[in-house]
Amino acid sequence: MRWTRTFIPTLREAPSDAESPSHRLMVRAGLVRQLSAGSYSYLPLGLRALLKAEAIVRQEMDRAGAVELLMPAIHPAELWEETGRLSAFGDTLMKVKDRRGVVSVLGPTHEEVVTHIVRNEVKSYRQVPITLYQIQGKFIRTREFVMKDAYSFDMDEKGMNASYQAMYDAYVRIFTRAGLNFIPVEADTGLMGGDVSHEFMAVSAFGEDAVLSCAACRYAANREKAACPPSPAAARIGLETQELRPCREVETPGMTTIEQVSGFLKVSPKELVKTIVFRTEGGFLAALVRGDHEVNLPKLRRAAKAETLEMATPEEIQAQTGGPLGFSGPMGLRIPVYADHAIQGLVNFVTGANRRDTHLVDVNVYRDFKPAVVADLRMALPGDPCPRCSGVMELTQGIEVGHVFKLGTRYSSRMKALCLDEKGELRPLVMGCYGIGVNRILASAVENHNDEAGIVWPKELAPYQVEIVTIDHKKMQIVEAAHDLYAKLRQAGLEVLWDDREAAPGVKFTDADLLGLPVRLTIGKRTVEAGTVDVRTRTRREQKSVPLAEAVEAVKHELEEYRP
Amino acid sequence: MRWTRTFIPTLREAPSDAESPSHRLMVRAGLVRQLSAGSYSYLPLGLRALLKAEAIVRQEMDRAGAVELLMPAIHPAELWEETGRLSAFGDTLMKVKDRRGVVSVLGPTHEEVVTHIVRNEVKSYRQVPITLYQIQGKFIRTREFVMKDAYSFDMDEKGMNASYQAMYDAYVRIFTRAGLNFIPVEADTGLMGGDVSHEFMAVSAFGEDAVLSCAACRYAANREKAACPPSPAAARIGLETQELRPCREVETPGMTTIEQVSGFLKVSPKELVKTIVFRTEGGFLAALVRGDHEVNLPKLRRAAKAETLEMATPEEIQAQTGGPLGFSGPMGLRIPVYADHAIQGLVNFVTGANRRDTHLVDVNVYRDFKPAVVADLRMALPGDPCPRCSGVMELTQGIEVGHVFKLGTRYSSRMKALCLDEKGELRPLVMGCYGIGVNRILASAVENHNDEAGIVWPKELAPYQVEIVTIDHKKMQIVEAAHDLYAKLRQAGLEVLWDDREAAPGVKFTDADLLGLPVRLTIGKRTVEAGTVDVRTRTRREQKSVPLAEAVEAVKHELEEYRP
Repeated sequence: MRWTRTFIPTLREAPSDAESPSHRLMVRAGLVRQLSAGSYSYLPLGLRALLKAEAIVRQEMDRAGAVELLMPAIHPAELWEETGRLSAFGDTLMKVKDRRGVVSVLGPTHEEVVTHIVRNEVKSYRQVPITLYQIQGKFIRTREFVMKDAYSFDMDEKGMNASYQAMYDAYVRIFTRAGLNFIPVEADTGLMGGDVSHEFMAVSAFGEDAVLSCAACRYAANREKAACPPSPAAARIGLETQELRPCREVETPGMTTIEQVSGFLKVSPKELVKTIVFRTEGGFLAALVRGDHEVNLPKLRRAAKAETLEMATPEEIQAQTGGPLGFSGPMGLRIPVYADHAIQGLVNFVTGANRRDTHLVDVNVYRDFKPAVVADLRMALPGDPCPRCSGVMELTQGIEVGHVFKLGTRYSSRMKALCLDEKGELRPLVMGCYGIGVNRILASAVENHNDEAGIVWPKELAPYQVEIVTIDHKKMQIVEAAHDLYAKLRQAGLEVLWDDREAAPGVKFTDADLLGLPVRLTIGKRTVEAGTVDVRTRTRREQKSVPLAEAVEAVKHELEEYRP
Repeated sequence: MRWTRTFIPTLREAPSDAESPSHRLMVRAGLVRQLSAGSYSYLPLGLRALLKAEAIVRQEMDRAGAVELLMPAIHPAELWEETGRLSAFGDTLMKVKDRRGVVSVLGPTHEEVVTHIVRNEVKSYRQVPITLYQIQGKFIRTREFVMKDAYSFDMDEKGMNASYQAMYDAYVRIFTRAGLNFIPVEADTGLMGGDVSHEFMAVSAFGEDAVLSCAACRYAANREKAACPPSPAAARIGLETQELRPCREVETPGMTTIEQVSGFLKVSPKELVKTIVFRTEGGFLAALVRGDHEVNLPKLRRAAKAETLEMATPEEIQAQTGGPLGFSGPMGLRIPVYADHAIQGLVNFVTGANRRDTHLVDVNVYRDFKPAVVADLRMALPGDPCPRCSGVMELTQGIEVGHVFKLGTRYSSRMKALCLDEKGELRPLVMGCYGIGVNRILASAVENHNDEAGIVWPKELAPYQVEIVTIDHKKMQIVEAAHDLYAKLRQAGLEVLWDDREAAPGVKFTDADLLGLPVRLTIGKRTVEAGTVDVRTRTRREQKSVPLAEAVEAVKHELEEYRP
């Protein structure tokens, strides 16, 4: 492609609202333009890279035996009612009404629709396993993404595990080919349901997701999922010998936060216990975590075997505890108390007294109150012990590029996607689902591979593999040599961008570095007279002079060696 | 692809809600499944055909010099306010609100967004002409389509005409390659605005659009656009010699329709004149057409130079004419009267009297009332004279597969997409826009090419080019021969579907005819023993026996000759 025949509006300055290095670079290199918050147009060069990411995804899905289809983006709301997700998704789900008032859903995910197709068409064990996937624009609130979503259907758990592993392996191949620095981590299943789930995280200091990982044993999980084991028995031995002081009341006028209370009482937040009241579909409960810890909602919901879990309102707290918000404590409560493991490692701690402006000090578990459940209920923190080995957990920021779930029969049971097994019995199909954010592959690749001059494209995502830069573009001799080289490279199956603008060499070189295509060829008066071309890759500063006749081979060789 | 590794749920019976032969065949052949009214999932075979149609579109757009990008489907409502289309589109436009109440639009078309991009990036005549296009899921009400939409930007009208012609020619190539029986027709510009527009209609008895065309001179237009010339002078000569009878009132109790009045007065509907009152932004007007004709809203709007044109309410009719709905007439009106040409061909006709239960007979134009405007204001009908030659217009039903518009500066002026010309003056860019319904290419191709047994795919759209049918699939010898042939065909770059099911030959042959791939190869006991394969194309009943070693060449030859 000739530069002057496409549309590559490069910029010297990053836009003022750019959020991250990848965003800055993608705008400056003319790959994307922001239309509104979180919404981008892909300009020609950006779209080429996006289509390359799509092609990698498609190839690896096909290789894993998955079958591509394309489902509507707009779903009948009834299907979402069948699974109960119409209400569960709440206002994260965009809804549209037609003229007759019929409500449809703009589907952020397709479990309902694909299960509907399968329950109508797949009736016998001979038709499974089957994994169906699509690549499509998806909508979450008013943001849109290009997603690959896949759904596997098996007769049993063993089959599902094999389908899950095939997708997991395909994801590893996809992100490896895309050149990402990524880690698979254990993840919570959230609104999808199911038991087992992994996220694939591209490592990036600007990523929105927190990952905790152990350098010693490679255990990794997102912050919500990461397990916090009970302190080792050894750590508690000392505690048992400590004297338990009698519990007493202290006045804490207007002190409702951990900071206020710990400052006023001159104790560390670690010696305080937070009591938080929640409402579930089965009633209220109180959760206890250490003052420096945070309640982990998915863990608490699982421990309480609840479908819904919401913080109680101040009025509800007053009614359930007898005291106002900010002064709750576990003593004397009639609702069940769920205590985090770490509470067992405390003696003589501080809690609210369920009375205004009052706390209790020297409270002790089992002596002063009895938890209904003791479990892992908190968010993990960097520095926590690894739940698998004796290592210590470290924090990494990441961009979630993929997510795989073992769904089990959650959807097939509710939607009656039943299949005859070999014995002639009807059984719900056992499902998995598997998502990839295709745009995020691009952003992550740029985030992982850049330098002060611009992008350094991974080979398989580069919009073009080669850029030809002509210096002094008006000279016929130079243009002819470039034209000839351009044709030969394309004949050899290479994708070539030719900067044929009448612009100063400095402008062209700066833009070439910004665009970051793997191989750059420079043709000017000096090289034409010598019958050569200057070859440079984006990863090296030095360039070599190669005879024009050997240029195609030289480019192929450089591409093979290219490791951004 | 092996049949057992993909997902092709063929059906013996057409679904009861199937709307047209193409719909019936596409469902039976397992290409699509309906999710809700007008909304389909593309199953693997249907998606392959859809992606082939997309590839043809992309290739021909690129060949025409258009540049691909991808814009968001969700647009800020402000952009649509800038052009006034937020209100003009009314409830055909789907809107979504985010949590802060900010309204966005699900864009059925992208003039606003692409003009916004271009006004920010294209500042000089050196950057034009440029034509940008995208292939994307689009939403109109709650229906969705895969559309190709393109937008051209030029400095002047001459440039726009060249860009328009380049797209027009590309469309002819696209629909020809897709094997469609199509005609380009003149069309109205509707909500897009602009002056010149063509639709590309795939001819189909089940199409929703009516086309009027002249077999003599090949003039063709959609029903709204087709010109109705004034009757030739010769036809009026007789009229001038007719006696003009005095106008008089008749009682027509409760008779408000043409049928009622013409039946009661025993005159043909052709001798009645309909008077219909409209409201525009500039006031009210009355339109007159012959009783057997229909008012053409776009023609009337253009004649009245109005932006908006709506039928008056019964209350407004009473206020403007002094009489109720159903009894309007041109005599004594104070609002301007717009008369269709054909009125001039009438003498002694019937109109309403602007009084309840009363009509006037023996009314005559110019004597009894004077129209403000006489123009072509009606919908064309089959049998009308051709506006270009002495031929007669015929009616054809069609499916609109493409639509091209000369937009002029309608959008660039309103949105200030200005560009410096060679003299250094800022001028609004001159635009065109160009749409293709990619799904409709598929439906039209199936509509144009089928027989009683199933689909007969055009070569370039066929999901696979070749189908191998193995008879007695359990025999090792047969499977080995088929496997070998399958591999060789694929090595030769052909796309092959192998029906490897353990099913009866009749089932496989019936499905092969239904699927309609161009070339079918049959391997069974007899052919394997003879070292041959039976070759048949979907367009011929006879099959020939070819030595296995020559099968690849034979397939290539048949494909070259294949003309569905």
